[in-house]
Amino acid sequence: MSDHDAFRQSLSDRAVLVEAFLDTQLSADPRDHETERPERLLAAMRHAVLNGGKRLRPFLLFEVNALLGGSDDAVLGAAAGLELVHCYSLVHDDLPSMDDDDLRRGQPTVHRKFDEATAILAGDALVTLAFDLTISGSAGLPAERRSELVLLLARSAGLGGMVGGQMLDLSLEHGDAASDMITTIHAMKTGALIRYACEAGAIAAGGTERARMRRFGEVIGLAFQLADDLLDVTADSASMGKATGKDAAAGKQTLVGMHGVDWARARLDAHVAEAEALLEPFGARAAVLCGAARFIAYRTN
Amino acid sequence: MSDHDAFRQSLSDRAVLVEAFLDTQLSADPRDHETERPERLLAAMRHAVLNGGKRLRPFLLFEVNALLGGSDDAVLGAAAGLELVHCYSLVHDDLPSMDDDDLRRGQPTVHRKFDEATAILAGDALVTLAFDLTISGSAGLPAERRSELVLLLARSAGLGGMVGGQMLDLSLEHGDAASDMITTIHAMKTGALIRYACEAGAIAAGGTERARMRRFGEVIGLAFQLADDLLDVTADSASMGKATGKDAAAGKQTLVGMHGVDWARARLDAHVAEAEALLEPFGARAAVLCGAARFIAYRTN
Repeated sequence: MSDHDAFRQSLSDRAVLVEAFLDTQLSADPRDHETERPERLLAAMRHAVLNGGKRLRPFLLFEVNALLGGSDDAVLGAAAGLELVHCYSLVHDDLPSMDDDDLRRGQPTVHRKFDEATAILAGDALVTLAFDLTISGSAGLPAERRSELVLLLARSAGLGGMVGGQMLDLSLEHGDAASDMITTIHAMKTGALIRYACEAGAIAAGGTERARMRRFGEVIGLAFQLADDLLDVTADSASMGKATGKDAAAGKQTLVGMHGVDWARARLDAHVAEAEALLEPFGARAAVLCGAARFIAYRTN
Repeated sequence: MSDHDAFRQSLSDRAVLVEAFLDTQLSADPRDHETERPERLLAAMRHAVLNGGKRLRPFLLFEVNALLGGSDDAVLGAAAGLELVHCYSLVHDDLPSMDDDDLRRGQPTVHRKFDEATAILAGDALVTLAFDLTISGSAGLPAERRSELVLLLARSAGLGGMVGGQMLDLSLEHGDAASDMITTIHAMKTGALIRYACEAGAIAAGGTERARMRRFGEVIGLAFQLADDLLDVTADSASMGKATGKDAAAGKQTLVGMHGVDWARARLDAHVAEAEALLEPFGARAAVLCGAARFIAYRTN
């Protein structure tokens, strides 16, 4: 099996695992400290989460943790919580006052299928559940590590991470930005959670190689956003399940728009080379993660 | 000093403590894992938080923890995190698609002073920071207790707690509801965080009296919402710093509207009696908490 096929198989296996867990967690039965779970809110949360996503971020957390000797079982809650943070951010980013999107993975966005108030609250409940699952679904980990994961997830997702990046991105739509500013936005808006995925895997496994995995996450995070911008230029809407050509139509500056397609492809090659160099000490055991880095940089949808 | 005066002094001292901490946490300096802190987002978060609130929830957490032998220092982050969850919920509840409020404590709401997207993101960043501070600001507590606090905060604030309660409350505005349903909404929307405040104080102090303090929190939470509904009928807008008479004007059902002012005052007396009975084993040491229960039930603004 090639690295690519091994990665696809592993990605798919982990997606099944995390979706089954999220399906159970998003059931109608109230849990400890809950009076009831409002039906419409739960339906909106399920629509936002159980939607056929690739589950790339949980995969990265699982795989880094496994490479460093951890079990998938021990980090199931942390992986599911990470995916919930990603899903909630999409629900809020799609809102009329933000990116105003009607479609997400070929389906109506949450505020289109339900309404705006329900979409805001569904996002709020999802980010809250993310911290719940990071603690409650990772019971196999010592409390010190679970606390460390909560702290890192919060810092990656908040003011100085994902949410801050969305804020800067919204400002960008209204004016010019230097290449450095765009790189900062990428690092915060999409990069911070991908970096968290990899660093969290290392924390869960006991903390060795934490700095290496953090850098690996940074590098593939940069590649992820650059590949996304490239796809917006080169792919068609049907294969993406969402609008493409949107950045240019909105007059939004991207690195690809500023520096060209060839430059972007050369940068992606450089990111993949650095990612593979970081994994070199693990030899063949890191084949799946190497496959992931190449998939992220060179994907076509 | 009367119980009431002792309570007011203690409330004021704890407000100073938690506000100084929040002021520092909401500074412009990026922390670990942060690239930068977007200026406009930070300004919106500060507007939402540093607004002269009573800081009742942090006070309850501090005071229960102190009664059971804990120090204020050890729970500063947990108390501040709790206040952030309360503040974020107000920002989102005030949004045009929810309660559509222009004023909050006599100041423009966040979406009126900034804009809707900024208000949504400020709320998102605040709830995220709440979990950060619960871990990072409570370093004096063992990791097991910090983990337990995160889990309980998430369950109190999410789908089956505060956010779920807001969802049910929005549905209620569009139709009839039984008295039981209104009580459920109260227990979730405002009660869950007040219960958390008291239960969290017990957890932080080591877990003794957890069930008692949880019940104490439930009881004063019910009193809090009932007093709020009563004030909507009896107080004027100037003394409240926000619109009053709003429930009736919106045709919104409340327990006071259904059962009358006398019934509500009798219920408040019963809640205070139960709260005081729960604190009876602590004798005079619980005077400040008893003062808090009476303040919550009988407050005039």
